[in-house]
Amino acid sequence: MKSFINQLIKTIEEKGSCSVVGLDPQLEYIPEEIRKTAFKKKGSGLKNAAETIFDFNKQIINIIHPHVGIVKLQIAFYELLGFWGIKVYSDTIKYAKKKGLIVIGDIKRGDVPHTSEAYAVAHLGGIKFNGKQETPFEVDAITVNPYLGSDSILPFIKLAKKNGKGVFILVRTSNPSSKEIQDLKCKNKKIHQIVASQVNRWGKDLIGEKGYSSIGAVVASANPNIISNLRHIMPNSYFLVPGYGAQGGRLKNIMKCFNRDGYGAIVNSSRGIIYAYNRPAWKEKHGLKNWQCAVEEAIIKMDKELKEAIRHVKGHPS
Amino acid sequence: MKSFINQLIKTIEEKGSCSVVGLDPQLEYIPEEIRKTAFKKKGSGLKNAAETIFDFNKQIINIIHPHVGIVKLQIAFYELLGFWGIKVYSDTIKYAKKKGLIVIGDIKRGDVPHTSEAYAVAHLGGIKFNGKQETPFEVDAITVNPYLGSDSILPFIKLAKKNGKGVFILVRTSNPSSKEIQDLKCKNKKIHQIVASQVNRWGKDLIGEKGYSSIGAVVASANPNIISNLRHIMPNSYFLVPGYGAQGGRLKNIMKCFNRDGYGAIVNSSRGIIYAYNRPAWKEKHGLKNWQCAVEEAIIKMDKELKEAIRHVKGHPS
Repeated sequence: MKSFINQLIKTIEEKGSCSVVGLDPQLEYIPEEIRKTAFKKKGSGLKNAAETIFDFNKQIINIIHPHVGIVKLQIAFYELLGFWGIKVYSDTIKYAKKKGLIVIGDIKRGDVPHTSEAYAVAHLGGIKFNGKQETPFEVDAITVNPYLGSDSILPFIKLAKKNGKGVFILVRTSNPSSKEIQDLKCKNKKIHQIVASQVNRWGKDLIGEKGYSSIGAVVASANPNIISNLRHIMPNSYFLVPGYGAQGGRLKNIMKCFNRDGYGAIVNSSRGIIYAYNRPAWKEKHGLKNWQCAVEEAIIKMDKELKEAIRHVKGHPS
Repeated sequence: MKSFINQLIKTIEEKGSCSVVGLDPQLEYIPEEIRKTAFKKKGSGLKNAAETIFDFNKQIINIIHPHVGIVKLQIAFYELLGFWGIKVYSDTIKYAKKKGLIVIGDIKRGDVPHTSEAYAVAHLGGIKFNGKQETPFEVDAITVNPYLGSDSILPFIKLAKKNGKGVFILVRTSNPSSKEIQDLKCKNKKIHQIVASQVNRWGKDLIGEKGYSSIGAVVASANPNIISNLRHIMPNSYFLVPGYGAQGGRLKNIMKCFNRDGYGAIVNSSRGIIYAYNRPAWKEKHGLKNWQCAVEEAIIKMDKELKEAIRHVKGHPS
């Protein structure tokens, strides 16, 4: 039977990488040589922009897939281009799957139960028409928002269980204002700790071969104590750790996301990889023409740093 | 200068209605005579289903627009049909705008600042290509989720201010599990009260002619004291009240959402209106063939009940 967590860990082992590349393309940042084609065509600017972004995504996937096993698509950057963008979201997922990658849809949905069910079917399920199953979005896992409580989350978990998919629940996010609600204390527990306990409970039913669950958590903080505590509350949950590089995720904090077995976290970088060619060091080395080299070196560098960090965690359990 | 709240109140006065019709179509519930056309066509089931839903939406809009001035689209039911569904989401918005309706996109988005900016541009803004502005989704207002804190909300408020749009922030939702986080108490204040205070503050800058703000709140509860208290914390906010009928929103609670001036709330019904023909009373009266009559009578009935309730609020201030 298909299991997200078994497939995830198998991929991490095969590739020797727990990096996640965030495919969050924005037209203004993609290389000039690809971008300039967007506006030579007639018709809708949204359509041309979306097609250009698909072209960029395919090139990024071609560069990174020998090194990493996981990509994450932030759907906001696709919604930005209307339904043309959503078509490219869907097409990029298919292309990444064809290259053997695990795909996470960073959608942060969550609504009243009847509506969450519709979102769950859209992103973790499919619909039968005339006996034929059609899948709007073929992702392996998604992110969801817990503000509406468990009945807004359970429809996702139910379909994840049925279809061997994964769900990452927002527990503690990386933005400065996350503390406004997530760090509030209620009866000696912070909101993010309360959500973490729920995530741990929800995950019990979907534990895979290595003791980890297909129900994971989005975890980020500049405070290493928050992360260690969350690791303790959710021993069986995989953490999706955003913002390696760009969102200020420092290596010593990221190390706290792993368990002593060296498992327990996947680490995302979006802009740090896909726009690596714009960073001064790479720009100087490769120039903008050879942007592909910068992307490849950036992901190899990230992989190496994470491997080193995990080796350290295994050697020096905290 | 365009102002969402001025336009909203003008529409409410002109139509004599504060009802919102929720366009949340699901293929299995729409009338047989429309649904059966979906599967005669070849090609993608998702495409056929989406086109069928657009046909249904147009008929619903034609029936209701003489009576009400506001529709709300729950985007989940469109995502369910992939990018074809999102195309129909966009097309339905355009059709409703052509009929002079105010359109609310019930999207419940919210993410780290850089990502919220992309969502905001997608849903409250537009992008320029070759000097021509293109708007992915032409809604007048959206709903957003506050779990990530103020820096996740401010990009929406900024664009709302710039473009004369509205934002409804989830404060207290209608689902049973909403209490798990939203009703937790931190330093003598419940989470929903803390969010409500923020909404009140964020709204100060966008107050319109009648003293109400373009920054509103999604408010629902089976407990009338919770609603009265939220009315008190957010005196200038318009409440978007979901679930008249289907989600158990009782009239006496809904009355607490209005201020003594008879303003302050818009009330949504989705299934209670668009599937009225399936309710025993209407089914018996009109039969399934005359489903349009049931939809029209249902919205007239809802309008009448709300008018009566508002009259009561104005006559008997609490």
